[in-house]
Amino acid sequence: MNFRAQILTLYPEMFPGPLGVSLAGRALAEGKWSCDPIHIRDFATDKHRTVDDTPAGGGAGMVLRADILGLAIDQALETGPDLPVIAMTPRGAPITQARVRELAAGPGATLLCGRFEGFDERIFEARPVEQISMGDIILSGGEMGALMLLDACIRLLPGVMGAASSGDEESFESGLLEYPHYTRPVEWEGRTIPEVLRSGDHAKIAAWRKQRAEDDTRLRRPDLWERHIGVRDQPPSGAQREKQD
Amino acid sequence: MNFRAQILTLYPEMFPGPLGVSLAGRALAEGKWSCDPIHIRDFATDKHRTVDDTPAGGGAGMVLRADILGLAIDQALETGPDLPVIAMTPRGAPITQARVRELAAGPGATLLCGRFEGFDERIFEARPVEQISMGDIILSGGEMGALMLLDACIRLLPGVMGAASSGDEESFESGLLEYPHYTRPVEWEGRTIPEVLRSGDHAKIAAWRKQRAEDDTRLRRPDLWERHIGVRDQPPSGAQREKQD
Repeated sequence: MNFRAQILTLYPEMFPGPLGVSLAGRALAEGKWSCDPIHIRDFATDKHRTVDDTPAGGGAGMVLRADILGLAIDQALETGPDLPVIAMTPRGAPITQARVRELAAGPGATLLCGRFEGFDERIFEARPVEQISMGDIILSGGEMGALMLLDACIRLLPGVMGAASSGDEESFESGLLEYPHYTRPVEWEGRTIPEVLRSGDHAKIAAWRKQRAEDDTRLRRPDLWERHIGVRDQPPSGAQREKQD
Repeated sequence: MNFRAQILTLYPEMFPGPLGVSLAGRALAEGKWSCDPIHIRDFATDKHRTVDDTPAGGGAGMVLRADILGLAIDQALETGPDLPVIAMTPRGAPITQARVRELAAGPGATLLCGRFEGFDERIFEARPVEQISMGDIILSGGEMGALMLLDACIRLLPGVMGAASSGDEESFESGLLEYPHYTRPVEWEGRTIPEVLRSGDHAKIAAWRKQRAEDDTRLRRPDLWERHIGVRDQPPSGAQREKQD
């Protein structure tokens, strides 16, 4: 059973695109995942193949019609009944590495990519669609986010990264940023690799890396650090608030 | 003066890729932005064109060599001396719509895309490189993040979105999620567009949208909401802490 990506989009020619080369491209050629774009416009019901209309209540841009999206999603649910349907939208829940791991461990995903101003909101009431945001920035459509999400999933599929690189020490897997890396040459422009990393002392190296991961997270990402500390120090009773007073 | 994208990558064939179609593709064809991938491997100094080596101190994966990256960045600084150099890395500062706006208003950017375990850290000490993270997930390389960042910038370039759609009401521009959208048909599967949006009363519509943007942000993104409230309620003296006690 391999990972199936169905992508509902107005630009099917964007897929697999950059996922057709390198690690993901090799995995695609080897059948470790499949990439099936579904053209939303194929579900239009008029001769102009209209998929959008002006926002109710006024405003700029165009909104993707619920009736057309409904038909497209129904088709995707028929060809991939076991795949979660995920809409790429800035109104969604921020993507996490934990959700990426879940998706990668599952049968795949149907990714719904918007364009214009977004989706008619009724689609989220009428169909089982998870809303995910790939970051607090605005894109021209969901396609770049879908490519990014698929890339994150595909690298975790069995056999894609190779046994040596399970990714367990990567940033966020531990709730911390990853420690910094160095490689040869030992000296470059007068800058040397930190001595501890050349010591061969594995315990010292592990301690240095842990310290750097913690220091860099605290300094660069106080938000991650607070969460990390919170998880670590969480009292069993959840009575932390009272304890403080 | 148009927006210049230089991309330092091991996969130059990924660019412009999906940015070659739709909105960004049209803008590229019209010369509103330019896309110049620079192949990092062209700066290798041995006959095997090696760009990476094993991590100092041990561990999985490979690390991009500082000496090769240094040469590649120096070239990029020569061909684009006015462009900020931005490395795509999960250790970087989270991207924001404010930074996207700044970049879009500037001359462009040189985007440095890693593969493997990452960059030799010395490159960040030795060259003026900003580190940006596109989200708290791990990708197979920086390329998908670079495509996403460029997409976010390009849609803001003058003349790309059209005069009507300035994007001022989009999610995050106000520090809030955007309100939900609706469009025709008025009724679909028994669900109707909220009546206020069909009222023609512009003041009521604006009030409803503001309320929904606030409600949805509070419910879906307490992190954004806290920041929004914090900014709004910030005391002039910064003496908020004392006031609470």
